[in-house]
Amino acid sequence: MKSYKKMSRDELETLRTELEKEYEDVKGKGLKLDMSRGKPSLSQLDMTMPMMDLFSSESVLFTEDGVDCRNYGLLDGIPEAKVLMGDMMGVPAEKVIVFGNGSLFIMYDTISRSMTHGVCGSTPWCKLDKVKFLCPVPGYDRHFAITEHFGIEMITIPMTPDGPDMDMVEEYVNNDATVKGIWCVPKYSNPQGITYSDETVKRFAALKPAAEDFRIFWDNAYAIHHLYEEVQDELLDIISECEKAGNPDLVYEFASTSKVSFAGAGIAAVAASQKNLDFMKKSMTIQTIGFDKINQLRHVQYFKNLDGLKAQMKKHADIMRPKFEAVLSIFDKELGGLGIAGWIKPNGGYFISFDTMEGCAKTVVEKCKEAGVVLTGAGATYPYGKDDKDTNIRIAPSFPTLEEMTQAAELFTLCVKLVSAEKILQSLN
Amino acid sequence: MKSYKKMSRDELETLRTELEKEYEDVKGKGLKLDMSRGKPSLSQLDMTMPMMDLFSSESVLFTEDGVDCRNYGLLDGIPEAKVLMGDMMGVPAEKVIVFGNGSLFIMYDTISRSMTHGVCGSTPWCKLDKVKFLCPVPGYDRHFAITEHFGIEMITIPMTPDGPDMDMVEEYVNNDATVKGIWCVPKYSNPQGITYSDETVKRFAALKPAAEDFRIFWDNAYAIHHLYEEVQDELLDIISECEKAGNPDLVYEFASTSKVSFAGAGIAAVAASQKNLDFMKKSMTIQTIGFDKINQLRHVQYFKNLDGLKAQMKKHADIMRPKFEAVLSIFDKELGGLGIAGWIKPNGGYFISFDTMEGCAKTVVEKCKEAGVVLTGAGATYPYGKDDKDTNIRIAPSFPTLEEMTQAAELFTLCVKLVSAEKILQSLN
Repeated sequence: MKSYKKMSRDELETLRTELEKEYEDVKGKGLKLDMSRGKPSLSQLDMTMPMMDLFSSESVLFTEDGVDCRNYGLLDGIPEAKVLMGDMMGVPAEKVIVFGNGSLFIMYDTISRSMTHGVCGSTPWCKLDKVKFLCPVPGYDRHFAITEHFGIEMITIPMTPDGPDMDMVEEYVNNDATVKGIWCVPKYSNPQGITYSDETVKRFAALKPAAEDFRIFWDNAYAIHHLYEEVQDELLDIISECEKAGNPDLVYEFASTSKVSFAGAGIAAVAASQKNLDFMKKSMTIQTIGFDKINQLRHVQYFKNLDGLKAQMKKHADIMRPKFEAVLSIFDKELGGLGIAGWIKPNGGYFISFDTMEGCAKTVVEKCKEAGVVLTGAGATYPYGKDDKDTNIRIAPSFPTLEEMTQAAELFTLCVKLVSAEKILQSLN
Repeated sequence: MKSYKKMSRDELETLRTELEKEYEDVKGKGLKLDMSRGKPSLSQLDMTMPMMDLFSSESVLFTEDGVDCRNYGLLDGIPEAKVLMGDMMGVPAEKVIVFGNGSLFIMYDTISRSMTHGVCGSTPWCKLDKVKFLCPVPGYDRHFAITEHFGIEMITIPMTPDGPDMDMVEEYVNNDATVKGIWCVPKYSNPQGITYSDETVKRFAALKPAAEDFRIFWDNAYAIHHLYEEVQDELLDIISECEKAGNPDLVYEFASTSKVSFAGAGIAAVAASQKNLDFMKKSMTIQTIGFDKINQLRHVQYFKNLDGLKAQMKKHADIMRPKFEAVLSIFDKELGGLGIAGWIKPNGGYFISFDTMEGCAKTVVEKCKEAGVVLTGAGATYPYGKDDKDTNIRIAPSFPTLEEMTQAAELFTLCVKLVSAEKILQSLN
């Protein structure tokens, strides 16, 4: 294929006319597809339905050590759920607290508590003039929404193929005491699918923060969410790296089964040092009499152990992989060699990160919407929704069926071509 | 029986010797009983076990209007759960948000949000020099723990048989702009079992707070938790009373099924005005992608409607009532006419409030503990754990079996008699 940028004005104008006609045709089809959020599909949810057969009126809903899961108590989760979630994160059970149905809630709660009560005895952040967070970009919109909600100033850090730009991270964290945290999705990052390199993890663990209440928010959302059996990214365990580096309290790690069992009814957990857990529990004991232990027990009895989780993830991969591959092969076929776009092929996670030419992302998203395909808003992968170069679009292939996904990807590439041709033509004027 | 206060020193000394001997005998029995918390008993939890038969791998876990309860979404709860929880509180579904498994969490969250984000646009409480809450006493220790945790100054308001002393409440709320809230358990109050009179509710609804961000925290924890079929307290609906009084935004009402279905795995809800709900949702949309909707659906399908809830509560009452009556009859038999104690016979709720002579409560609780019966700590029913007169003890008869409860109540009354006799003897010295 010929690169658009090497085309003459005439060639581009002819192309634009063709693409416009094609676009009008597709619009006529009345598509109604949603690629906006990383939601599991129906068949993924169906896969976990046998979990509903597990308990009956005859079941004994007690933990192994005899605690009644139906009653109040066990603030920090049932012991066997700590083991399961710990195994998922690769940390020992005693470093884990198991919560309710979502890790987003734990992250919000952690920031909220830091605002009102500080971090392990530090000044509450709400009493400080300025609190800053580092935000690797492109990143997860819901992370940025939390820090924005609490009035925390967000500083963007560019992502590299090895993770966030660690020179910048070290520069900020080790010198600026108003920098209190950094958002990380270290494995199969949202949206790029990048896994932090060993060196990146070690540099994180070796940070010497200017602020005693600085913490790494390590959202290990896709710890076991591989797309392939053969090619699986490996992430160094941040908790033990921090310990080795003499920084045991530096990190909170978050995980959940939202994309393992049920997105709406899974279990979520945090892993951290004893000091961090103790401080969390001091608030938790006021906040709740404990989270839903029956659902914790249900998960443990269903998955049994890490092998059970992995077996389930293999089935998820079998559903997800064809969609990812369909999208990527359409990108290759339709956009390869045109010089108007870039994307990353991930080995896991829930997203494909797509970059248009500068100044095109918003228009592509609008054009898709006009033709019935909803994408995550352009800019959503940046703090305050501001992607200054207007290039990044997050593609979420999980929810639509393979057929719908194919249609959506074809429309998407058509819009990218059309908007890019227009953009280049404008620049020639 | 002869009033202790009318006994001679000799009579009292003989009595004390007898009681001490009796106490040593009981201590020898090695009792191990817990009356400290309002936990449902095993048989109450067993009652709800058929809920576990409800869903199987064949179930369609969708709401009536087609939302998949297994996936993300529906931030404010499934519509049918709003109806159920609304019916429980006596308010329309559109005024309800359904959360996860505990109302304590919602209350904590509401205070926490007020600290960081204010109330419907007011200054965040963490930015104010002083925030005060009114605390009717005796009251619920976990309420007081929340306000204490956030550094909110607590002002005690004496309870009367009609609810909190409303003259004092009006005086504070209508004149002091630093007073931002009041904790209420308006029906079968914790621990006294008092239900607020119609006049009290109307006076609450007619408050003219000096602070625009003042709210009533109406913890309707025992809305349908009657002990008797024949004698049931009625509580005026605060939400509609506030509307009638032109104060629609004045109140948050909380409720849960913790003592209807499972204490650890129920569902909880808040009811409030549209303005209050909208402000809550603004934070919730950042905080969570929704609570466990499968458990909400499970509850709706199990209880079906208010009649279903009421039928369940009748069964709970059949288990609870004999324990309450056993305790009360032991109190009557052992302590009636002695002039050393007072207690209230409740028509519902989870507690019996007991008052010793001044300066005796702590010692009674200690003596009970020494002999193997754990009670809620004396003072727990007061802010900061400080019951200046040292008289109030909360009795929680729900968790032990009837036989255990009888043993515990007998030991308790023995301790009350012994400590009282000693106290009177001291005063004669």
